[in-house]
Amino acid sequence: MSKVIVIGHKSPDTDSIAAAISYSNLKRELGMDAAAYRAGELNKESKFALDYFGVEAPEFIDHVEAGQQVILVDHNESKQCVDGIKDAEVIELVDHHRIGDFETASPIFILFCPVGCVNTIIYNLYKLNNVKPSRAMAGMMLSAIISDTVLFRSPTTTDKDREAVKELAELAGVNYEEYGMEMLKAGADISDYPAEKLAGNDTKEFESAGKVFTVGQISVMDVEPINAKKADIMAALEKNRAAHNYVASYLMVTNILTEDTYLWFTDGAKDVAEKAFNKNAEDNCVYLPKVMSRKKQVSPQLIKAYAE
Amino acid sequence: MSKVIVIGHKSPDTDSIAAAISYSNLKRELGMDAAAYRAGELNKESKFALDYFGVEAPEFIDHVEAGQQVILVDHNESKQCVDGIKDAEVIELVDHHRIGDFETASPIFILFCPVGCVNTIIYNLYKLNNVKPSRAMAGMMLSAIISDTVLFRSPTTTDKDREAVKELAELAGVNYEEYGMEMLKAGADISDYPAEKLAGNDTKEFESAGKVFTVGQISVMDVEPINAKKADIMAALEKNRAAHNYVASYLMVTNILTEDTYLWFTDGAKDVAEKAFNKNAEDNCVYLPKVMSRKKQVSPQLIKAYAE
Repeated sequence: MSKVIVIGHKSPDTDSIAAAISYSNLKRELGMDAAAYRAGELNKESKFALDYFGVEAPEFIDHVEAGQQVILVDHNESKQCVDGIKDAEVIELVDHHRIGDFETASPIFILFCPVGCVNTIIYNLYKLNNVKPSRAMAGMMLSAIISDTVLFRSPTTTDKDREAVKELAELAGVNYEEYGMEMLKAGADISDYPAEKLAGNDTKEFESAGKVFTVGQISVMDVEPINAKKADIMAALEKNRAAHNYVASYLMVTNILTEDTYLWFTDGAKDVAEKAFNKNAEDNCVYLPKVMSRKKQVSPQLIKAYAE
Repeated sequence: MSKVIVIGHKSPDTDSIAAAISYSNLKRELGMDAAAYRAGELNKESKFALDYFGVEAPEFIDHVEAGQQVILVDHNESKQCVDGIKDAEVIELVDHHRIGDFETASPIFILFCPVGCVNTIIYNLYKLNNVKPSRAMAGMMLSAIISDTVLFRSPTTTDKDREAVKELAELAGVNYEEYGMEMLKAGADISDYPAEKLAGNDTKEFESAGKVFTVGQISVMDVEPINAKKADIMAALEKNRAAHNYVASYLMVTNILTEDTYLWFTDGAKDVAEKAFNKNAEDNCVYLPKVMSRKKQVSPQLIKAYAE
C-alpha cells in the first residue's frame, strides 16, 4: 500500500473516482508516494469512463488504519468518509462542497472552490504546477466534469468548468459533447438495478441541528421506468432509513434531459420537504422544476429547514 | 460600509491586521466592493508597520450584522471570530491555522496552506491573479511574514515564507533584516503595559472535547521585566479565566532572541501542561526550549492533552 491514500466519498460518483485517480497522479508527479482508492462500488458511468480511457479502477477499501495518511478529495463531512477516518491523519483536502464538521489538529493544505466539479480544481492545480496531464488523466478529469455538471446543464456549472472541459477534451482527443452524451447515457441505464440499489444510489448523509438524514440521487433520461418501481424503491428507502435511524431519507429522481427533479422522501418528512422548497407534496414527493443539483439546490435547503 | 467585510481574529496581531488590508485590496483590484476591518485593538508592532508604510488602520468593529457578507482571514474557529459571525454570511476563508468548527451551508472559496503566515498565501494570490502589490501593500505583507515567523526564527517558517519576504522586501524597498528587527523591537517594547493587558496579550480561545481554554502570547527580547510582574499578571490571568469560566488560561512568554518560551498557566492546569509537553512544571510554568509557535508547538499539544 502506498504511503498516502487519496480517496473520495462513500457511494462514489464519477467525480470522486476520477479525483482520486487524477489527484494521486498529480501528487506522484510532484514526488509523493500516493495512490488512488475508492470507498464504495463503481457505478456504470464511472466504469464507462475508465474503460474508454483505459484506466484501472482504484482499489476498494472499507476502512483506513489508525495513523494512515489520507488525502480527501470531493468530500469532507465525516459521515461521507471511509470508515476509520477519525483516527487517520488527513494531510490534504480538495473539495467543492459545503464544509461541515471537518477539523484538524495542525494546519494542512485545504482548497475549496465553488465550482461544478472538484476535477476542475484539480486540473487547475496541474496547470499551476506545470504538469501536463496524459490523455488518460485528461479523459478522467473531463468525464468527471461532464458528469457533475450534466454536460453544463446543472446550475452548479461555472465558466471555470466550461473552460476546463474545452481544454481537457483537446488533451483527451475527444469531442466532449458526443463523448459526454454517450457517457451520461451509460450512467443513466439503470433499468436493471434492483429496488434496493436504486434506493441507495449515490447517497450522502447530512447532519443538521443533530438530525441525520440522507439524500440520494438517480439521474435518468426517462423517469417512467423508475416511477414504475416506486413502491419497491420507497420500501427499500424506508427500510434503510429505519436501520440507520435517520430522521428521513430523500431520493432525487432527476431527469437530465428535461432538467427537473422529483424529490421522494420517507414517511414523516412531508412538513420539512414542503417548508424547505415552499412546495406542496403529494405521494411522498415534491416536484422541483429546474432543479438538478443536490449540493446547490437540495441539501442546503434541507439543512436550513432542519435547523429552523 | 463596504459590501464585504474582510477581517482577522480578535486580539489581532500584525498578520491579521495586514491580511485584512492586503486581501481586501486584492479583492478590490479584482472588482469586489470589499474593505478591511479589525476585531480588536492594534498592538505596537502593527502600529509601527502601518506608520512606516503610511497605511491607514482598518476600522474597528465589535460585531457584524446578520446577513453581512464577510471574508475571514487568518482564523476560522468561531471562538476567535468577531461577534455575530454565526448569523453573517462567510463568503471566503483564507488561513494558515488548524481548521476547527467552521461550517458553511453552501460551497465557498477556502484556501489553507501550512505556511508561517497567511500573508504568504495572500501574496501568492496576488501573483496568481497578476496583480502587482503597491509599495504599501508589499510593506504590510512583508511586516506580517516577519512578525509571524519572527524573522525566520519560528519553526513554522517555510521556504514559501522566505521567498515571499525576499520578493516583498524588493517591492517595498526595504532591507528586510534591518526593517524586521526594528519592527520586532517596537512590538516587544511592552514594559509600560499594565498587568491586565499583558495577561490578555494576543489571546486565542480553543476548544477541545468540550473544554474551552485560552492561550496568549507575549514576545519579548528580555524576559526579566515580564518576570518582575509575574504575580500581577498571573492574578489578572486567573481573574479573566474565572470570569469566562475557561477550564484554564495559558500565557506564552516567548523570548525571540533566545528562541524559547516560558508557558505560564492558571492554577489547576499543572497536570495537563505536564502531560502535553512531557515536562515538569514549577511555579505554574513549564519551560519550553526551542518553542516559539503557539500554532505548531503549543495549541495542538494542549488540544490533544485535553482530548485524551
